[in-house]
Amino acid sequence: MDRDAYLERLDATTGDAEDLFEHFEQRSVAGRTHHVLTAARHGLERGTVIVEESDAVVRGYPSVPRILVLDPGVPSFFEAGERVAIEEKLDGFNVRIADVGEPLAFTRSGYVCPYTTARARDLLALEDFFAAYPEKTICAELIGPETPYTTHDYANVDSHDFRVFDVRDRESGDPLPVAERRELCATLDFGQPRLFGWAEPSDAADVAGNAIDELDSAGREGIVIKSSDGTAMVKYTTESQHHAELAYAFSLPFDYGRDFVFSRIVRDAFQAAEFDEDDDRLQERARNLGESILRPMVATIRDVADGEPVGERHTVRGDPDAIDALFAHLHNQSMTIDLEDDRREDGERVVEFVKVAESSRDRIGYYLNGGSRNE
Amino acid sequence: MDRDAYLERLDATTGDAEDLFEHFEQRSVAGRTHHVLTAARHGLERGTVIVEESDAVVRGYPSVPRILVLDPGVPSFFEAGERVAIEEKLDGFNVRIADVGEPLAFTRSGYVCPYTTARARDLLALEDFFAAYPEKTICAELIGPETPYTTHDYANVDSHDFRVFDVRDRESGDPLPVAERRELCATLDFGQPRLFGWAEPSDAADVAGNAIDELDSAGREGIVIKSSDGTAMVKYTTESQHHAELAYAFSLPFDYGRDFVFSRIVRDAFQAAEFDEDDDRLQERARNLGESILRPMVATIRDVADGEPVGERHTVRGDPDAIDALFAHLHNQSMTIDLEDDRREDGERVVEFVKVAESSRDRIGYYLNGGSRNE
Repeated sequence: MDRDAYLERLDATTGDAEDLFEHFEQRSVAGRTHHVLTAARHGLERGTVIVEESDAVVRGYPSVPRILVLDPGVPSFFEAGERVAIEEKLDGFNVRIADVGEPLAFTRSGYVCPYTTARARDLLALEDFFAAYPEKTICAELIGPETPYTTHDYANVDSHDFRVFDVRDRESGDPLPVAERRELCATLDFGQPRLFGWAEPSDAADVAGNAIDELDSAGREGIVIKSSDGTAMVKYTTESQHHAELAYAFSLPFDYGRDFVFSRIVRDAFQAAEFDEDDDRLQERARNLGESILRPMVATIRDVADGEPVGERHTVRGDPDAIDALFAHLHNQSMTIDLEDDRREDGERVVEFVKVAESSRDRIGYYLNGGSRNE
Repeated sequence: MDRDAYLERLDATTGDAEDLFEHFEQRSVAGRTHHVLTAARHGLERGTVIVEESDAVVRGYPSVPRILVLDPGVPSFFEAGERVAIEEKLDGFNVRIADVGEPLAFTRSGYVCPYTTARARDLLALEDFFAAYPEKTICAELIGPETPYTTHDYANVDSHDFRVFDVRDRESGDPLPVAERRELCATLDFGQPRLFGWAEPSDAADVAGNAIDELDSAGREGIVIKSSDGTAMVKYTTESQHHAELAYAFSLPFDYGRDFVFSRIVRDAFQAAEFDEDDDRLQERARNLGESILRPMVATIRDVADGEPVGERHTVRGDPDAIDALFAHLHNQSMTIDLEDDRREDGERVVEFVKVAESSRDRIGYYLNGGSRNE
């Protein structure tokens, strides 16, 4: 592999190939060699992949900054005078689907998920897309109650589905403008996140606030606001999402609690300071916050005391080979999996399983047995 | 200073003086040179001090482990058959008072606090104590609403006072047995933490549980359970203390929130799993937890929005020179102090001041101005 040539193509902020490539990890995927950037470095996004035999670069998806107040968060973030789109942000599994010899679904961190790849090939018109746009990447969320990663319920998604929220140049990462991308997705019958509207930045906080109210009532995650050319984007989330994430994190407290808790509280507090003018409303939010944290953790402590399994429960549905490949992939990531059910329905294989949360199970067991904590 | 001789006297777990002394910091205090261990290392407690000119070692106070369930936490921690004392743990400022040429009050981290030193000289019979026990250290909490460090209210403590909870050998750190220490303190008229009783470890969880109920109702911190010889000790705290600490931490979220939040939630959740069999009780605790976190943070965000000062408000009362020395000490620790009031009452100087919480003020200001957060 000619590192200097890739350094040039990647447009990294270092001139020294070794400086960059020491952060790449080599993996073998379906007979090809993937070089994966495991953390953001030198202007390149985490999860950027070079597929050696295909001479292909798949740029990582950029991290999306977050604002904590809509006003003046939105008008400060964008240039005055440009128009911004307010789109829904979905709670799913973020993948990039790129044709690197064959179409593969890459996770945020640059792994190829065999299950998501198989589902994308089934559910999206990838041949049509890549025939017309061989150099582009589809950025999509795999959503629904039956995925190996997230379980958020969405109306009209019984099992799982994709929502395409971005189309970018595979190598440079440059996005299609929002309107063009939405039209392309509509033409190809790709599911898309809802568009709440367009506005000038000075008016967008109001549109965004109404969207957040509506999404919060429906228990949905939040919004992403994008400049019309798709390059600038910022996110903002609902109270119900903050609390749902805390409930998830504290159901597995020693796996996720510590990392999740502070940031979600910060989001909720700024939202309360901006919107909860009524003290009853603040009290309701605060009580709900406390219940989101404490109840799931107490339930899990009691599960451990009762010898119940502790972990994330998922259901997957699809082609039997793809499901075998999924479990091989999860085992490669050092996960401990408990299979709870494995059956056929209408020619598909349906598996229910638990990703065992060993840290939570073991720490809770230790403290319940009287173990002490040195602080 | 003969490092090898001190290494021997300190009974460190390393034979290499450099290994240990690289973690000491040199400070000049009232004309003497203090060498202070800034973190626990090689079997020595953080805050261990060598006073060079006095050839004196002041051993750091050991960190006290915590149990998260009383049963089987207490019986697992102690040897079966020994008797343990259940004493109150007070929410104050923990100092060691040792005679190193003169009696000085050392903080947990080994600083000399001039104000606490002056108050101890006024309020405790130090001359009598050190005449009889020159080689011992008094371990005490400075408690009450008027201290430069904590503000917890205690019945019958109008301003501030000391509670002596331990007497230890200055150099070895070996404690007096609990009964002997309590008798000595009574003789010298030193205030002491309440003793709830003595029990075998197998019965102590019940005594401890009743003590915790009573302390929780009074909004007090918790208990320390000690073996009768004073060497083994373990702590356990009340719900009201967990929530009070969260309220304090989230009143200054970017100074204390992140470090405080997870551990307090863990304490509260294990306590709930052990004691809140009634779902209404669990709900009340959860709601109270949420209000403890969110309300103080929202109040502080609003204070920043309104240009109000943000920080910890304290009142101190005492000798004018000691108060000057206190402010010099706080400034040396890089604190920003806003003086709010400075007056005389009955020959004493009374100062109200705010320790400005710059991180919270500045981060909140940044987000309120629309600043974004990269996650």
